Amino acid sequence: MRTSQEYLERLREMKPNVYMGGELVKRDDPRIMPGINVMSITFDQARDQENAELFTATSHYTGAKINRFCNVCHSVDCLLNKQKMIRTGTRLSGFCIQRCMGADTINALSIVTKDIDDAYGTEYYDRFVEFVKNFQKNDLTGAAAQTDVKGDRDKRPHEQADPDMYVHVVSQNKDGIIVRGAKEDITMSAYCDELIVLPTRTLTPEEKDWAVAFAVPADWDKVYLVNRASAPREREYLKAPLNTHGSSDAMVIFDDTFVPWDRVFMCGEHDFAGRLALTFALSHRHSYCGCKPAVEDIIMGLISLTSEYYGVEKKSHIREKLAHLAGVAELIYAAGIAGAVESTVSSSGTQVPGVIYCNVGRRLAGENTYDSWGMVADVAGGFPVTMPFEADYFDPKIGPMVNKYTMRNPKISAENMHRLQRTLADYLSSSWAGVWQVADVHGGGSPVMETIAILGNYDFEERKRIIKRLAGIED
Amino acid sequence: MRTSQEYLERLREMKPNVYMGGELVKRDDPRIMPGINVMSITFDQARDQENAELFTATSHYTGAKINRFCNVCHSVDCLLNKQKMIRTGTRLSGFCIQRCMGADTINALSIVTKDIDDAYGTEYYDRFVEFVKNFQKNDLTGAAAQTDVKGDRDKRPHEQADPDMYVHVVSQNKDGIIVRGAKEDITMSAYCDELIVLPTRTLTPEEKDWAVAFAVPADWDKVYLVNRASAPREREYLKAPLNTHGSSDAMVIFDDTFVPWDRVFMCGEHDFAGRLALTFALSHRHSYCGCKPAVEDIIMGLISLTSEYYGVEKKSHIREKLAHLAGVAELIYAAGIAGAVESTVSSSGTQVPGVIYCNVGRRLAGENTYDSWGMVADVAGGFPVTMPFEADYFDPKIGPMVNKYTMRNPKISAENMHRLQRTLADYLSSSWAGVWQVADVHGGGSPVMETIAILGNYDFEERKRIIKRLAGIED
Amino acid sequence: MRTSQEYLERLREMKPNVYMGGELVKRDDPRIMPGINVMSITFDQARDQENAELFTATSHYTGAKINRFCNVCHSVDCLLNKQKMIRTGTRLSGFCIQRCMGADTINALSIVTKDIDDAYGTEYYDRFVEFVKNFQKNDLTGAAAQTDVKGDRDKRPHEQADPDMYVHVVSQNKDGIIVRGAKEDITMSAYCDELIVLPTRTLTPEEKDWAVAFAVPADWDKVYLVNRASAPREREYLKAPLNTHGSSDAMVIFDDTFVPWDRVFMCGEHDFAGRLALTFALSHRHSYCGCKPAVEDIIMGLISLTSEYYGVEKKSHIREKLAHLAGVAELIYAAGIAGAVESTVSSSGTQVPGVIYCNVGRRLAGENTYDSWGMVADVAGGFPVTMPFEADYFDPKIGPMVNKYTMRNPKISAENMHRLQRTLADYLSSSWAGVWQVADVHGGGSPVMETIAILGNYDFEERKRIIKRLAGIED
Amino acid sequence: MRTSQEYLERLREMKPNVYMGGELVKRDDPRIMPGINVMSITFDQARDQENAELFTATSHYTGAKINRFCNVCHSVDCLLNKQKMIRTGTRLSGFCIQRCMGADTINALSIVTKDIDDAYGTEYYDRFVEFVKNFQKNDLTGAAAQTDVKGDRDKRPHEQADPDMYVHVVSQNKDGIIVRGAKEDITMSAYCDELIVLPTRTLTPEEKDWAVAFAVPADWDKVYLVNRASAPREREYLKAPLNTHGSSDAMVIFDDTFVPWDRVFMCGEHDFAGRLALTFALSHRHSYCGCKPAVEDIIMGLISLTSEYYGVEKKSHIREKLAHLAGVAELIYAAGIAGAVESTVSSSGTQVPGVIYCNVGRRLAGENTYDSWGMVADVAGGFPVTMPFEADYFDPKIGPMVNKYTMRNPKISAENMHRLQRTLADYLSSSWAGVWQVADVHGGGSPVMETIAILGNYDFEERKRIIKRLAGIED
Repeated sequence: MRTSQEYLERLREMKPNVYMGGELVKRDDPRIMPGINVMSITFDQARDQENAELFTATSHYTGAKINRFCNVCHSVDCLLNKQKMIRTGTRLSGFCIQRCMGADTINALSIVTKDIDDAYGTEYYDRFVEFVKNFQKNDLTGAAAQTDVKGDRDKRPHEQADPDMYVHVVSQNKDGIIVRGAKEDITMSAYCDELIVLPTRTLTPEEKDWAVAFAVPADWDKVYLVNRASAPREREYLKAPLNTHGSSDAMVIFDDTFVPWDRVFMCGEHDFAGRLALTFALSHRHSYCGCKPAVEDIIMGLISLTSEYYGVEKKSHIREKLAHLAGVAELIYAAGIAGAVESTVSSSGTQVPGVIYCNVGRRLAGENTYDSWGMVADVAGGFPVTMPFEADYFDPKIGPMVNKYTMRNPKISAENMHRLQRTLADYLSSSWAGVWQVADVHGGGSPVMETIAILGNYDFEERKRIIKRLAGIED
Repeated sequence: MRTSQEYLERLREMKPNVYMGGELVKRDDPRIMPGINVMSITFDQARDQENAELFTATSHYTGAKINRFCNVCHSVDCLLNKQKMIRTGTRLSGFCIQRCMGADTINALSIVTKDIDDAYGTEYYDRFVEFVKNFQKNDLTGAAAQTDVKGDRDKRPHEQADPDMYVHVVSQNKDGIIVRGAKEDITMSAYCDELIVLPTRTLTPEEKDWAVAFAVPADWDKVYLVNRASAPREREYLKAPLNTHGSSDAMVIFDDTFVPWDRVFMCGEHDFAGRLALTFALSHRHSYCGCKPAVEDIIMGLISLTSEYYGVEKKSHIREKLAHLAGVAELIYAAGIAGAVESTVSSSGTQVPGVIYCNVGRRLAGENTYDSWGMVADVAGGFPVTMPFEADYFDPKIGPMVNKYTMRNPKISAENMHRLQRTLADYLSSSWAGVWQVADVHGGGSPVMETIAILGNYDFEERKRIIKRLAGIED
Repeated sequence: MRTSQEYLERLREMKPNVYMGGELVKRDDPRIMPGINVMSITFDQARDQENAELFTATSHYTGAKINRFCNVCHSVDCLLNKQKMIRTGTRLSGFCIQRCMGADTINALSIVTKDIDDAYGTEYYDRFVEFVKNFQKNDLTGAAAQTDVKGDRDKRPHEQADPDMYVHVVSQNKDGIIVRGAKEDITMSAYCDELIVLPTRTLTPEEKDWAVAFAVPADWDKVYLVNRASAPREREYLKAPLNTHGSSDAMVIFDDTFVPWDRVFMCGEHDFAGRLALTFALSHRHSYCGCKPAVEDIIMGLISLTSEYYGVEKKSHIREKLAHLAGVAELIYAAGIAGAVESTVSSSGTQVPGVIYCNVGRRLAGENTYDSWGMVADVAGGFPVTMPFEADYFDPKIGPMVNKYTMRNPKISAENMHRLQRTLADYLSSSWAGVWQVADVHGGGSPVMETIAILGNYDFEERKRIIKRLAGIED
Repeated sequence: MRTSQEYLERLREMKPNVYMGGELVKRDDPRIMPGINVMSITFDQARDQENAELFTATSHYTGAKINRFCNVCHSVDCLLNKQKMIRTGTRLSGFCIQRCMGADTINALSIVTKDIDDAYGTEYYDRFVEFVKNFQKNDLTGAAAQTDVKGDRDKRPHEQADPDMYVHVVSQNKDGIIVRGAKEDITMSAYCDELIVLPTRTLTPEEKDWAVAFAVPADWDKVYLVNRASAPREREYLKAPLNTHGSSDAMVIFDDTFVPWDRVFMCGEHDFAGRLALTFALSHRHSYCGCKPAVEDIIMGLISLTSEYYGVEKKSHIREKLAHLAGVAELIYAAGIAGAVESTVSSSGTQVPGVIYCNVGRRLAGENTYDSWGMVADVAGGFPVTMPFEADYFDPKIGPMVNKYTMRNPKISAENMHRLQRTLADYLSSSWAGVWQVADVHGGGSPVMETIAILGNYDFEERKRIIKRLAGIED
């Protein structure tokens, strides 16, 4: 397993193909570093005395000890531990731990490549196993490049005025394939090792060219990352871990990019495109049942610490909010546990979490995102978003007055109150906060997508039969 | 294990002590029979080809095969199966399957009698084991007589103007104890074998006399059951299983009742009263994570069947409701599964479900009861509650017209439409329905009680530490 | 204006055409009397010293003083006073005051008959004015017979397998028309003077025969009322006003019924059918902005009195509920006030309330019905729905014990506590309560109908323009 | 009335006392200008052909035509027009129009100064009238400096370790008073003419020194404004009105500031402090019933334009959201209308809006803020918060590709799509957006404050009487 320093060194060696604000930038650009710092947590924790066991796993391909983010789940415990690791990592990061993206893509590919082989006698699964062994051995990170830009939502991929609105195969030969198109919202693509590309939706027979999955190194030739970096405001005086963390999302453009066959995991099997898209979504929604409870943990922490510092911890409306949020957090987490308990085993031996539980859990998270942050806003009061800039607190003339009027409970120093309020500001009124509020609605599929998944999988006919029997209705 | 007929025969042999509407009635009074019919399901299912395995268990006291409602849970699987059995039974009953009351009392006593013995060297646990062996062997049913009438809510038990507001020990001698007081809302007491009496709350040293737990046969001397029976409207023409089911609740009065020592499970250990009350509540809330999903199953069945019969099944507002309700059902169920997975083992070897999960699950159920029924009302439309009485449909003159105007989709016969609408009426506008709507809010503790339990058990300090670390706050 | 006794006398003189439970019954059948008692409030209040001014109005047709329920609104004040009267009446009744049905039909007819005449040179408006003058002079009551049984919801009226699924004209001659079909959910039809029949929806040119509006006396030849009466449980010992009130709904069947021309207000003008249906709905939704706040008043009364009697009035969760309910009540009432302030005047001079406000107000009411009653259930606790029957409290043997254990706060007598709890039972777990919970969702149109009305009338394009301007988007 | 240019000129002439980021800055600092631009709208609209009537009023003190923001409401129409003007201004600004702050302070002072005079024979009202005549004549703007920093929330003003936690009178002489303390969250103080200082809460007899109200020019001696400016991201290429707007909030510090008697409006009358605080809050909450509907207008505009551009306008979940938001907007607006209709007249002749309606309206707004923005996030999808920076769209190499992949519906140009998405980003993920989300929860009092106001003013006893009468309970 790599150290976080080794991970960073490799990024520095990569070929520049990251654009930001009209410039070609380095991967260790100061605006990108906060994302790298978050990824580093996942390397460091695998060596941390307390959490190493949780952050490592044993590969069932090689028997080697690996970072759990590189693991393909092969037991109920794998799923339970993945979920727990993600909750732990998210608490440490202060928000999305990001690296589950790669974990969920390899889990999905491990299932569906085998399904395709079983149906068509292809050899995707063996290719994938070679890929994943290398991924595990070198402790790599992978971005999930799934969401196509999609063009006109009313039209299918093959009906678009511009066929490139969904990534597709332009041509193929004995060495590999040429692909074109763009994926958007691709988190951590600027600081991952591998871009793992999956289809975004179900496809029809006319859409074989769009049925394509593959992986390329993130600095691969003719791949362009147009990046948008995001982080809490940098601190000049009051350094804090949260303010060294951040994330990036990019539009990933494939402009007639060549991919060799050993990195191609689907090519033309349109009838499995939807299954691959949904299997990734399922695995990712199970991961969300780990990270979203941690976001609620952070929210509960903000509310309980703020109410303690403000001296209103015992007010009934605070208590009500905390009890409600504990319910949200643990219902989501329970859904993930139930998803693991009610999992099944795929033909390739991968453990597949229960579809209903992962979807009801993820949806609850998405439905509560803004409401939960609204509670933080309610408890924080207006000051954290109107408070003077950091430098004013340290200004020789005005600083003493500002600090004097920052004091509340005499047991809490002005600096600690200032620290808390500035952290509240980061979570409530920074551009970075807005990004993550929206991401918590949409990542892994917005609530309406989970509703569709639930409606497609739930057995309502069984419920009708309950009533027919009770009502004495015979068909 | 008994047959349902043997269960009924035993009830018929019991001494009359059930009062209803100013009369002393028989236990098989026609108004009480619907409740007996529900209990009979639990005996019949234990012999049913399909469900026998689910409804039976192996006693870890005797090794014998027993009805699972008589089981003391001793493994994660016990908890998972109990939950599943209750969901299955509730679907068959059309509402509360009732018999879990006894199961939850014996589970609670199995834990706390041992705790008391460990603390005080008493012998309650051995007594309890003898009691439960007999309970299992004779396949008995038990009512949980917990809720005291409580008098003035602002005053503690020992501060009441009338000390009988909470059941208490009046005197004791070498043979046993004399108790006085009343318990209210005691479901199925009119047709159970045993009344199992538990304290209702935490108690102080001044309240040793109120710290009492015991069991007596339901027709015991100086025990009076003032009963309120409830069932869907009886049918004259359109017989249906639901309309043979029902329930009873009673005020159970102990008027200087003698209880022999071998049936006393707590007497004076005030510091364990709250623990016993809460341990029963915990077990019962875990059971609710089984029955409430089934109530939502029934609700989803009503909505999906009604919308099919009305021809509006594909309307988006119907689909939205169903997807939402599936979420409610499965989040509650997931909480029960997580409660089982995160369970612990008591000193007596009983499996104790995780307190947070059972509480967040039960609370979600209570919070959604009225809202879910409101959705049924929304889909049902007004007619089920304004429809002519049953006889009008069969009247020679007016009946044909009423039936003509009942027709909707020509594929659904007027009779089946009539059956469905009358079942909707039973669930929406019968006195029985009102009883169960209220019961689904309060049974096992209303949402505010679960909020208190969550606030008392959740680690908010850990969440504060997450924020302090991220914000760089050092104490 | 009539006395309530005169109203009753006239009902007694009417020809029997009310069927109930397979029998032809009298209009003063004991099961129907509770509805008559509610209607009587509207006559009595018009003579009541305190409320006479609110319950009477001045006819702008004749200048005479009339019952306000017979008034056609012709000013903003008319609308404000109608709303206030309905809130007052509903508080007195304990639920729906019912007589607004007639008021809303005559208001709708006063507008649309004139519109039709303006378009087609017909003479409906003059006929209507004659009708309404008589209606006002004789202080009549009218049921709104609007909702057709509708058959297959997927098909339009003229596409139904049975053309009678919507009331329609079978034939016409110089004296009048013959109509056939049935209306369902027709409140107070068993004890009104006039049945006022309106179309239920928009109609197409193929559906001229279904475009029909008329009024007939409720005991008219070839009109059959299949009635479903409903009331809180009758009291044997604890007489109370609420328990003398109630309501009836009927299926109203027109079986080739003759209607003379002077009572026909629309016949074939299909393009005005939807307008008439919606204009009635609009007026009725404005009325709901008066009655639903009163239902919330009753709910707040139940919660605040119960919490006082139980000694929990100061608990934060009680206070929260009351504050929330006050918000629901007054937002609905405010919507009615805004509807009056933003009203317009029709070509006939009738004041037409603002469509958006009436719809957002009515919808809020419908959305909160079950939730509000759930709050009552939460505060009431389980006992009101499991309490012994009335006679048990007065039984010589068991009664003293039951009363002893009913006591809570010593300042509240057992009888008053008993009275309150039995009233809670009436509101929470009687068949009558279920009827009114459903009615409060659907009466005047369920929330989904208001959503449709809002979407059809709200100016979203204007909102798009706001954004285009701010974003610098030029088309 | 002034032009916006005259307003700006006066600001430029003011003495520098605004601190920001550790520097003393000019009032027309580029970071502050966005707030000035918003204020300018209020001057420009008073001269605008279309809106001049709405934005101007006639002073009942002088008969002169004045900017309506300088008006003291003296009729129902004044209140209705103020509300309407604020909705219109907020739509133009894209968020808070800000200038109502001053309007609400002068309205509150016009009421309470007279009340104090009536009680104590003081002469505050005359002073106030002189002040307000000048305020109207010179078309001034005023910031409401109300919220004290408050120190330890568990302690009253006079119990604080540091007595300066609430602004108070340090000494007084024949010329005036000396005050000390700080107010926080004071919107527009950096670009207003007058700081109008009000107490923040009810006070006791020990707290006479804290019972102080006064006005000083914003650049007054020994007044320090520590400012926090906020605006949507500046645009380099895609200029848009929204991106020239913004706001500032400051901590306003009075460091032994002298105030002459003719500018003092309360000094020691502790028993009127709460009344002044609440009267301002009431007026301000009525204003919120104008601005918050406009915020919902903006939200509806974003959702409907985005769904049109994305081609999903007809999806049921979009329609549902829009219908819901229309309800929120119009219920709040209706509450303001009802507040005007149900207003009363103070002893000084000022029109006082109805307390219940203003509070239920404002609370609904606060409760829905985050939920409504969550709907925007849901419809916007992830791209607006992960989209490349502006310059990337105009980069010669990468720009064409980014624009190509921005296209959706071919009828919408890439630039217009880009403009909309960037505006979505401004509203969802800018620091400025976070400030206004929090402000919409707290401004004028957070929901919990309105709950307190409702509980303190609503007649729950009347509701109890309704139930007692219906239940036959006699006290």
